[in-house]
Amino acid sequence: MIANFYMPTKVIMGENCIVNHAEQFKSLGSKALLVTGAKSAKLNGAQADVITTLESLQISYIIYDKVMSNPTIACVYEGAKLAREEDVDFIIAIGGGSPMDAGKAIALLASQDIKEEDIFSGDYGKDILPMVFVPTTSGTGSEVTQYSILTNDKKETKTSISSPILFPTISFLDAKYTYGLSRNTTINTAIDALSHSVEGMLTKKASKVTDILAIESIKTIVLCLKELMNGDITKESRSQLMYGSMLGGMVIAHTGTTAVHSMGYGLTYFKNVDHGRANGLLLSEYLSFVKKENPAKIEEILEAMGMERIDELKSLLEGLLGEKETITEQDIEKYASISIQAKNIANCLVAPNYDDIVAIYKKSFNLL
Amino acid sequence: MIANFYMPTKVIMGENCIVNHAEQFKSLGSKALLVTGAKSAKLNGAQADVITTLESLQISYIIYDKVMSNPTIACVYEGAKLAREEDVDFIIAIGGGSPMDAGKAIALLASQDIKEEDIFSGDYGKDILPMVFVPTTSGTGSEVTQYSILTNDKKETKTSISSPILFPTISFLDAKYTYGLSRNTTINTAIDALSHSVEGMLTKKASKVTDILAIESIKTIVLCLKELMNGDITKESRSQLMYGSMLGGMVIAHTGTTAVHSMGYGLTYFKNVDHGRANGLLLSEYLSFVKKENPAKIEEILEAMGMERIDELKSLLEGLLGEKETITEQDIEKYASISIQAKNIANCLVAPNYDDIVAIYKKSFNLL
Repeated sequence: MIANFYMPTKVIMGENCIVNHAEQFKSLGSKALLVTGAKSAKLNGAQADVITTLESLQISYIIYDKVMSNPTIACVYEGAKLAREEDVDFIIAIGGGSPMDAGKAIALLASQDIKEEDIFSGDYGKDILPMVFVPTTSGTGSEVTQYSILTNDKKETKTSISSPILFPTISFLDAKYTYGLSRNTTINTAIDALSHSVEGMLTKKASKVTDILAIESIKTIVLCLKELMNGDITKESRSQLMYGSMLGGMVIAHTGTTAVHSMGYGLTYFKNVDHGRANGLLLSEYLSFVKKENPAKIEEILEAMGMERIDELKSLLEGLLGEKETITEQDIEKYASISIQAKNIANCLVAPNYDDIVAIYKKSFNLL
Repeated sequence: MIANFYMPTKVIMGENCIVNHAEQFKSLGSKALLVTGAKSAKLNGAQADVITTLESLQISYIIYDKVMSNPTIACVYEGAKLAREEDVDFIIAIGGGSPMDAGKAIALLASQDIKEEDIFSGDYGKDILPMVFVPTTSGTGSEVTQYSILTNDKKETKTSISSPILFPTISFLDAKYTYGLSRNTTINTAIDALSHSVEGMLTKKASKVTDILAIESIKTIVLCLKELMNGDITKESRSQLMYGSMLGGMVIAHTGTTAVHSMGYGLTYFKNVDHGRANGLLLSEYLSFVKKENPAKIEEILEAMGMERIDELKSLLEGLLGEKETITEQDIEKYASISIQAKNIANCLVAPNYDDIVAIYKKSFNLL
């Protein structure tokens, strides 16, 4: 029996946890680079809480707020250049998956000279700046993973940098930053988190310990999705979502993801479909594919969802995601030929081949 | 909702995991101090596996094998003196709770000048030697905690040193080192592990995430205890016990323990009752005490055990532990007056007062 475990990130959770745990910043240095997107960190109060805390400790800071959705290589090199020029001691990433993923790459590139063509090599030294993460969506799990997912224009997809040094030092989880999220973003990010936990259970690297975290995460998130189906969700449920999403991150930190993620990247890269939405559009058909070979594992997942059939999940996701994008057979062939090359495929408990992937895309988009 | 989490120790599990993951030692230094007891690490093969691995990497080592059960202050200062004299880079602790707890204190004292009278202060600097842990029993959980429990002669009890710097760097969990454990040691250590997870659920610091780890741990360990009740246990079950015990360690790393532990320390200090056995003798009556105030939590624990009543647990533990030690009312008053002062008492979800503690002791030993 194997149940390896490595989760060095310190997770601090609760209302006002940043301000209430200001002491956590003390050992990180005297100057920080805040990495965020253009708007949301300012609107949801996270940036203000961070700045209040830094000022109370007389830690100086500069702000790099140019991170876009699905961050590019150019973006993280620009952030790292600023970090070097300003000689910052640590990084504070505030936002959804994009600022957090960018924050990891910036922390790495600020400490090591890595050429652009080597950025996806995974062959890095040990140096990196300490990182404080403040998620403001509940989906990515990036606050507790060693992955930084960047847009890879050379391969026309998104590719992950992965290294144990990329685990954030501390993550502050305060659900109040998610209170103002739109219904769409709430749904897409929650489905992303659900997908992490479900996919984690369907990898070769899944263990007993990752499965119990995944099951807890699935239970928690599906309750929130059902609530979203019936209208808006409560603040308490937003807190549950942040918890479930963090657990999903802990799961994939150990297991990685499956074909669902690699297939979703095509939809995101070429059609600009939101990442969580892309996973949600593909998830049910992927489960049906796996069920043929491993019905027991699918049963276990459905039980955690409080469901008996994959159709129930499909209805829930379709209800939440609304009208699907139009994609053509030609699109599908292109996405399939790219996604079949991803590492995630070999990681699947039941690995699809090219034809399987084409079939899953087609069923997901009603072309079959 | 709060679900803080911090578990920086890297856990590597599986048969021959030390030899198979030799690369993990590389970054730790060029000279190690092995901390063990006099015999078991040599007999169960753990020391040989460690030495083979060190030699394959040309890491030199010296051995300090004088750790006794319930290690003393003198012992850890002696070990630290040797570590300093020999200028070792890291510590490798091999054994049950005693060598691991001693290993942590030695790693600390080898790096920081702490006076004997300040050893329990908790007020330490940041420096400590890296630590590799190899548990050879399944009970203590020390391989994944920040606690080092030492004999405190001044207070006539056992007291824990606690600091985030005391988490081991890496723990290797290979159940083969436990195959040769006596039935008694297997039972006592398994009950210690069970007690960790049960007590963790009954602390003020318990969270959703520690509860799910505790429930998984309780389920796993109780199955093994039932198997032990019917005879010996299989190698696979020994692997499960090591897993359940590790989870119990992760639980108490976050939650701490309860009155059961502080009450047990009296039995160990004055009557030399094995630590796990002491917890097992007290656990059922403590649950009965808590049930009066918080029946729901006890239900949850019993459900994880696959039991309906505390009596079933009591029968199982009594069956495994056999004839109880004789203790007098006078003994009880002494132990109660010491244990009521422990930090664990304030940590209890339902905290006993002095009279409650006396009553739990009396019921546990049939004096009432």
